[in-house]
Amino acid sequence: MAGGVKTRIAALRAELAELEAQLPPPVSPLAPAVFPELPVIDGVRFATAAAGVKYKNRTDVMLAELCEGTQMAGVFTRSTTRSAPVLRCEEALAAHTEAPDKAGKFAILVNSGNANAFTGGRGFESVDVLRDAVAASLGCPAEKVFTSSTGVIGEPLNHGRITSAVDGLKGGLDPARGHSAARAIMTTDTFPKGASAALDLDGVPVSISGFAKGSGMVAPDMATMLVYIFTDAKISQSVLQQMLWLENASSFNCITVDGDTSTSDTLLLAATGQADMPVIDDFADPRARVFRGALQGVMRDLAQQVARDGEGASKLIEVRVTGANSSGAAHRIAMSIANSPLVKTAVAGEDPNWGRVVMAVGKAGERADRDRLTIHFGDILVAENGWVSPEYTEEAGAAYMKQSEIVISVDIGLDSGKATVWTCDLTHQYITINADYRS
Amino acid sequence: MAGGVKTRIAALRAELAELEAQLPPPVSPLAPAVFPELPVIDGVRFATAAAGVKYKNRTDVMLAELCEGTQMAGVFTRSTTRSAPVLRCEEALAAHTEAPDKAGKFAILVNSGNANAFTGGRGFESVDVLRDAVAASLGCPAEKVFTSSTGVIGEPLNHGRITSAVDGLKGGLDPARGHSAARAIMTTDTFPKGASAALDLDGVPVSISGFAKGSGMVAPDMATMLVYIFTDAKISQSVLQQMLWLENASSFNCITVDGDTSTSDTLLLAATGQADMPVIDDFADPRARVFRGALQGVMRDLAQQVARDGEGASKLIEVRVTGANSSGAAHRIAMSIANSPLVKTAVAGEDPNWGRVVMAVGKAGERADRDRLTIHFGDILVAENGWVSPEYTEEAGAAYMKQSEIVISVDIGLDSGKATVWTCDLTHQYITINADYRS
Repeated sequence: MAGGVKTRIAALRAELAELEAQLPPPVSPLAPAVFPELPVIDGVRFATAAAGVKYKNRTDVMLAELCEGTQMAGVFTRSTTRSAPVLRCEEALAAHTEAPDKAGKFAILVNSGNANAFTGGRGFESVDVLRDAVAASLGCPAEKVFTSSTGVIGEPLNHGRITSAVDGLKGGLDPARGHSAARAIMTTDTFPKGASAALDLDGVPVSISGFAKGSGMVAPDMATMLVYIFTDAKISQSVLQQMLWLENASSFNCITVDGDTSTSDTLLLAATGQADMPVIDDFADPRARVFRGALQGVMRDLAQQVARDGEGASKLIEVRVTGANSSGAAHRIAMSIANSPLVKTAVAGEDPNWGRVVMAVGKAGERADRDRLTIHFGDILVAENGWVSPEYTEEAGAAYMKQSEIVISVDIGLDSGKATVWTCDLTHQYITINADYRS
Repeated sequence: MAGGVKTRIAALRAELAELEAQLPPPVSPLAPAVFPELPVIDGVRFATAAAGVKYKNRTDVMLAELCEGTQMAGVFTRSTTRSAPVLRCEEALAAHTEAPDKAGKFAILVNSGNANAFTGGRGFESVDVLRDAVAASLGCPAEKVFTSSTGVIGEPLNHGRITSAVDGLKGGLDPARGHSAARAIMTTDTFPKGASAALDLDGVPVSISGFAKGSGMVAPDMATMLVYIFTDAKISQSVLQQMLWLENASSFNCITVDGDTSTSDTLLLAATGQADMPVIDDFADPRARVFRGALQGVMRDLAQQVARDGEGASKLIEVRVTGANSSGAAHRIAMSIANSPLVKTAVAGEDPNWGRVVMAVGKAGERADRDRLTIHFGDILVAENGWVSPEYTEEAGAAYMKQSEIVISVDIGLDSGKATVWTCDLTHQYITINADYRS
C-alpha cells in the first residue's frame, strides 16, 4: 500500500517538475501594480544595451552619464570577499572624496549576467578595460567611472561584449530612460524596482529618482543588491555621503531575505547640482533634514521592493521591535526574528506561531526577559507577561496570517531602543530556485 | 497554453499533498543502520511510560534514577527566553556545585510532547509538582530531581498525567532500558540516538553511555536538543563539569540545523562513581585526559546523529575551516558556511557551488582574504589564489556532490586557527515540516 503511494508520488513529482520548467518564473505576488513614473533628473542620462553577457533576448548593460559638477556618495558590501568592481568603486569614491571638485563627468556602467567576483587578477583587468572604454567614449576621467557587475560568480567576465556596446550606448543616452535602466540590471528579479520623490528646498523644486535590483539569483550565485539614486539637488560630497550612510542604516540595512550577504552589493547616490539653489554644505542646514526625509522615503521604498521580490516570497513581513536596551539591540533582535527559518516558514504556512518569535528573541544575544515580552501580530495582542494573552484566540491569529503583509511587533519591555526591518517568508519556491535548478 | 499548464500543476500539487499526508514521516536517509548496544552503567536505572502528554500510542516520559554518590554536570541553552525546566535545572546544578557531597540520590525526568516553555508562573508550578512527585516516589531530595520538557511551546503542561505515571515508572526501573529511554524523549526525531564507549582508566574498566534527541519538531515549535550521558567513573563534580564544558564546545556547539536556538536545550552528564577506582579530582590527572577522549567520541557521535536527523536532511555536511586567525574565528566562519541557506540549498541540489562558500566566508565578520582562500570539496581542489583552480572540472565537482556525506574544506591562509562543524542540507522537506503542516 505504502509502496503504491510512493510510486504514485514519484510519478507526480516528475510530471510536476517537467511542467514547472515550462512556465516562465512567476512575478512576485507582492510586486507593485506598476513601475512608477520616474522624474527626469537634470544632468543624468541613461542608455541600455543587449550585449549578450550571458542572457539572450534582453538588455543586460546600463550606462548612466552624470554631468560635470556632480557629487557622488556610495556604500558597499562589507563582505571580506568582495568583487573587483566593488573594490575599484571604493577606490574611486575615496579619490573623489579627497578631491570632490576635480573636473570631469562621472559615469556608471552596470552589467547583469556575470558578477566578475572571485575571478582573481583577471577581475581587475576587466574592470579597468571597461572603465577605459567608457572614459574614452564619453570623454570623462577613467577614475570617475564606477562599474558594477551582478550574476554568476567565478567565471571570467567577457568584457569585450560590453566594450563593443559602449559607443552604441553613448548614442542612446536619454534622460527619460530610467525604466529601461532598471530593467537592464535585473538578474532573477521578477519585477523592476523604481521609486522617486519631489521636494521643495526653500522654494526650489528638486527631485530624487532611483532604481534597484535585488534578490534575484543567477545560478550558481547569490542574490546581489545594486541601487542607484540620482538627484538634481546641490549638495557637497561630505554631506551627501553622511546622508547616505544614515539613511542606509534605516533602509537597505533593514532588509534581509536569507541572511546571506553578496560579494557585490553597491549603493551609489549622485547629486548633479543642476537645481538653481545654494549648495547644502553643512549637515545642520535645515534643507538637509528635508532632503534626508525624502531620501529616506525613496530608499525605504526601494528596500521594501527588494524584500517583496525575495526569492520565493509569498508574504512581506515587517518586524518592529521596541523597548530594547538600545537601537542596536533592537535591530539585532529584529534581524534575529527576520532571519529565523522557523519564523519564516511559519509565516509561509500562515501559522500564528508566536512561540517561534519568543525563540528568535531569546537567541538574539541581547538582553531580554521572557516575562516582560509583549508580542502583537498586526493589532492582535498575542502574548504578554511571559505567556499567551488571555484575550488571544488561535482563530484571530490564524485569520490575520492569511494577509499578504504581516506585521510582527515585539516589545522587549526594558528601555526605549527600537528598530523596524523587513523580510519575506521562506517557501518551497525558495528551495526550488536555489536547489532544484542547476547551472 | 500557460493556463492549461497551471491548472494541471495545481491538480498535481493537490494530489501530491494528499498522498504525502498518508505516508508516515520517513526515517532520515542518513540514520545509522541500527541503534547501538548501550552498556549498562552501574548505578543508573531507566523506566519509560506512555502518559499521553500529547502523543498517543507511544512512550513520552522517561525517568532515570542515579545512585547515591553520583556527581552531575550540565550545560544549558543560552537563550534569554529559556524554559522553566531549564531555569530549575540551572538552580539545581548550582546547589549541587555548592555542596557536591550532600547525601541523596539524583533523578532525571523527561517528557516529550510539551516544552513547558513560555508558560508564565504556571511553568514553575509544573516543574515543582513533578520534582516533588519523583522525590516522594524514589525517596530522593526534590532539589536533586532534574526535569526536561520538549514539545509544543506556550501551552500549559498537563503535569497531572505525568505525576500519575511516576509510581509505575518507579516499578519499571531497569539498568538495561537505555534504548527505550532514548525513544521516549523523541519528538519528531525520525530515529533514536545512542552512543557509548568502553575505556580503561589505569586498569579499571569504565563505560560511558548516552542518548539524545534533536531536530525533531512538535508543531508549532522549534527543534530542541536534549542529551543525557552516564558513566560509572568516579570523578569530582568540578572536574566533571570542566570536561563537559570543554567537550561540548567541540561537539554539540559544532552542529546546526537552521541556526535557530531552542528555549529548552539541556545536556546532563552523570558520573555514578560505582567503578572501583580512586576519584579523579584533578583536571591534570592523566586519567582525565583518557576519559575526555572517550567522552568526546560519545558526544561527537551523538551530535552528528542530531545533524543527520536535521529536519528534511538528505545530506550530512562537514565544514572544516583551517588557517583562520584563531579557533574562534575558524568556528564563526565554519558556522557562517553551515548556516547559509544558499550553501545548504546548493548541497541539496547537488550543485558544487563554491561561489556560495566564498560568499559565506565573506559575510562571517572574520578576517579573510579572497586571494588566500583554498577550497576543497572532499579531496577535490576547487578554488585557490582568488579563483577557480585550473585543474578543477565541473564534472568532478558534480560527481562528488552526489554522495550523501559532503566535506567542504576551506583554508583561510592567514594563521593556524581551525574548527569543524556539522550540518545538513536545506530541502523541500524542511519547508514541508515547518510550514505546510499546522498544529
